[in-house]
Amino acid sequence: MADKKKKQKRRRRDPSSDDEAVLPFKDILRPDSELLETLKQLVEAHNAVSDSASASTSSSKPLTLSDLNLSATCREVADLSLSSVQSAIETLILQVAHSIVSGNGFSFQVPSRASTNQLYVPELDRIVLKDKSTQRPFAHVSSVRKSTITVKILSLIHQLCLKSIHVTKRDLFYTDVKLFQDQTQSDTVLDDVACMLGCTRSSLNVIASEKGVVVGRLIFSDNGDMIDCTKMGMGGKAIPPNIDRVGDMQSDALFILLVEKDAAYIRLAEDRFYNRFPCIIVTAKGQPDVATRLFLRKMKTELKLPVLALVDSDPYGLKILSVYGCGSKNMSYDSANLTTPDIKWLGIRPSDLDKYKIPEQCRLPMTEQDIKTGKDLLEEDFVKKNPGWVEELNLMVKTKQKAEIQALSTFGFQYLSEVYLPLKLQQKDWL
Amino acid sequence: MADKKKKQKRRRRDPSSDDEAVLPFKDILRPDSELLETLKQLVEAHNAVSDSASASTSSSKPLTLSDLNLSATCREVADLSLSSVQSAIETLILQVAHSIVSGNGFSFQVPSRASTNQLYVPELDRIVLKDKSTQRPFAHVSSVRKSTITVKILSLIHQLCLKSIHVTKRDLFYTDVKLFQDQTQSDTVLDDVACMLGCTRSSLNVIASEKGVVVGRLIFSDNGDMIDCTKMGMGGKAIPPNIDRVGDMQSDALFILLVEKDAAYIRLAEDRFYNRFPCIIVTAKGQPDVATRLFLRKMKTELKLPVLALVDSDPYGLKILSVYGCGSKNMSYDSANLTTPDIKWLGIRPSDLDKYKIPEQCRLPMTEQDIKTGKDLLEEDFVKKNPGWVEELNLMVKTKQKAEIQALSTFGFQYLSEVYLPLKLQQKDWL
Repeated sequence: MADKKKKQKRRRRDPSSDDEAVLPFKDILRPDSELLETLKQLVEAHNAVSDSASASTSSSKPLTLSDLNLSATCREVADLSLSSVQSAIETLILQVAHSIVSGNGFSFQVPSRASTNQLYVPELDRIVLKDKSTQRPFAHVSSVRKSTITVKILSLIHQLCLKSIHVTKRDLFYTDVKLFQDQTQSDTVLDDVACMLGCTRSSLNVIASEKGVVVGRLIFSDNGDMIDCTKMGMGGKAIPPNIDRVGDMQSDALFILLVEKDAAYIRLAEDRFYNRFPCIIVTAKGQPDVATRLFLRKMKTELKLPVLALVDSDPYGLKILSVYGCGSKNMSYDSANLTTPDIKWLGIRPSDLDKYKIPEQCRLPMTEQDIKTGKDLLEEDFVKKNPGWVEELNLMVKTKQKAEIQALSTFGFQYLSEVYLPLKLQQKDWL
Repeated sequence: MADKKKKQKRRRRDPSSDDEAVLPFKDILRPDSELLETLKQLVEAHNAVSDSASASTSSSKPLTLSDLNLSATCREVADLSLSSVQSAIETLILQVAHSIVSGNGFSFQVPSRASTNQLYVPELDRIVLKDKSTQRPFAHVSSVRKSTITVKILSLIHQLCLKSIHVTKRDLFYTDVKLFQDQTQSDTVLDDVACMLGCTRSSLNVIASEKGVVVGRLIFSDNGDMIDCTKMGMGGKAIPPNIDRVGDMQSDALFILLVEKDAAYIRLAEDRFYNRFPCIIVTAKGQPDVATRLFLRKMKTELKLPVLALVDSDPYGLKILSVYGCGSKNMSYDSANLTTPDIKWLGIRPSDLDKYKIPEQCRLPMTEQDIKTGKDLLEEDFVKKNPGWVEELNLMVKTKQKAEIQALSTFGFQYLSEVYLPLKLQQKDWL
């Protein structure tokens, strides 16, 4: 017994235990009731901004390309119903047939998705596609394969419309392996087809595999089943691959906590962080997938909640933030539906490393590639428009240090949920 | 209208549509009621085998190493409670202290986990660890780092026991980056520590990130929340990372369908295959992770259901089957808790390619590496003990052809759920 006591005492001096004297900032944490007030103000401020934004455009709708007089020079897609997709395909094929019969040959007009045809629109805070497009004639050696693949993809999508089922990109590929040769070819043309038809890829009923999970103060319906995400244990609910069967979102949360990685998600789920601070916790376990991006956008739009992001303090973390926020270049044609504007960078920010006294051994030196990526990001419009982000990124590139969310484990495994995040909320420390 | 009709008629001739005349075997499918009878017989036969197996050992427990007189020469770990793990660590450290005080120095005795120290035991149908172990002295230049890491990991696990929380391997690594240098070093010692303490890695409260999902006729509790997997929409329920908080499993399913990949899982979840044939559908989305393996084992053990596996027809698919069935070499010390014996290979089997008339363009040539892996598998005990598997694998290596589950999409996207799987069940076509 005496032995045990001595051991526990010794444990207290271990810097990785949660002794209050050692843990940075634990002593300045205010009671939860005060923090909840802070959060309520956050939601009110968030809604006031949304309201004034909509008031300034004299409508409750968000800004569109046509509001900015860009609809003639930029291209955007919309969510279409299955029957509209079906009609669009039939119309397109009739046009092609007409062209053949009139002696003008067989060709598709395909919007260019190259980066030279992309534009960051500050007013919309996302990347959009400009209006350049190229011909894809069947009777040309350089495009005969691609136009054949285009026909095949159109015919497969047409089938999906008739049957009203969802398939994966891999399923599409396997309907004709010899033609597609490898999956990148059918995937690329699939994005072409969405652009050509002017609809989102989800409208085509082609889904990517699901990766994301969600837990916390959210109730929603998945394919007709009502899901209560406060009752999903530690594992959480897998985010459905098809957003069109997700609906009826209800929540009493005050914010959405977007987490980059699984490990931090597990910590917060086990500690039921959402019971202490009403929130919805969501992660795509790394690089954001389309299903998680659509799900996040839907939550933010329908529930009108602010989104706070917890990512690693490295260029890659910021890049992930940017994909959620302004879209990936690869799918810029669909940025309106895939992006969640106004995500706040909560942490781990480069300035947190010193502020929270993260020990040197938990920081990692940035590689040459990291530093280059960081400098490239400084040139990106979506970073430049946020002076706070520029400052943080400059600090990262200057100190050449990075750190993962897990670096906080050095102060004890629960420092993240018990000190770091509550203090961030208390100090409204987001950018 | 006439146009539309003509187009639909044309569609019928498309081999990728589900015209009955074209679809192999659709015409011989019997009514579902007959198939359900087949499945009930399967469960009865499965339980009869389990009963006779337990009768022959005069107990309801499965065979153990000591039943086979192997406990002196083989090593196995058990699920231990947190307080037992805590005591085991304290005992171990006291032994070390005693050794130091008596002038014998500071050293750990670490079980070897090398493949030369592994043994396939046919009676148990899994890989176990033999009893060789090595010294890890502190006062030796080759092991000073590793013994220091061992102390650190033991101290961290001791903390987890006191706090009763779960952390990821990544969290562990980040408590002392400078010491561990890279995560493989802390991961390796973590497995050493589990072996040394004679407990499973889950007993240490260290969890891997979750990958698996489950849907279908299963109700279970996750961290106190009751989950009904028939009401999880298309996304399904994420399998919890910590099996010790999973319990109260109930089911009216007749079998467990273990699916290798996400795409097939999505198809079956959308079609609610489990409503037509009462089953539980589970996938780890590729290489099986520890959480999914533990979950599968728990389902099979508690619900006493047969497990039918749907994997790609390639050596990798069979390897995945073997990891679920007999364990991975890396974690052979814990094979008793991680493996699910008696998994039936439902498909896609090499003989299915011809039987189901999978077109040539949907088969892929095996690479040199594939063929080598296939031949290596033929030498493995867990393959050799099943003559049916040997025959299939020989066919694969001979024809040098492989195919993914998705290859069935060539007959229409729903061929898998509407023809292939029902026919497999009707014909009891598993090995």
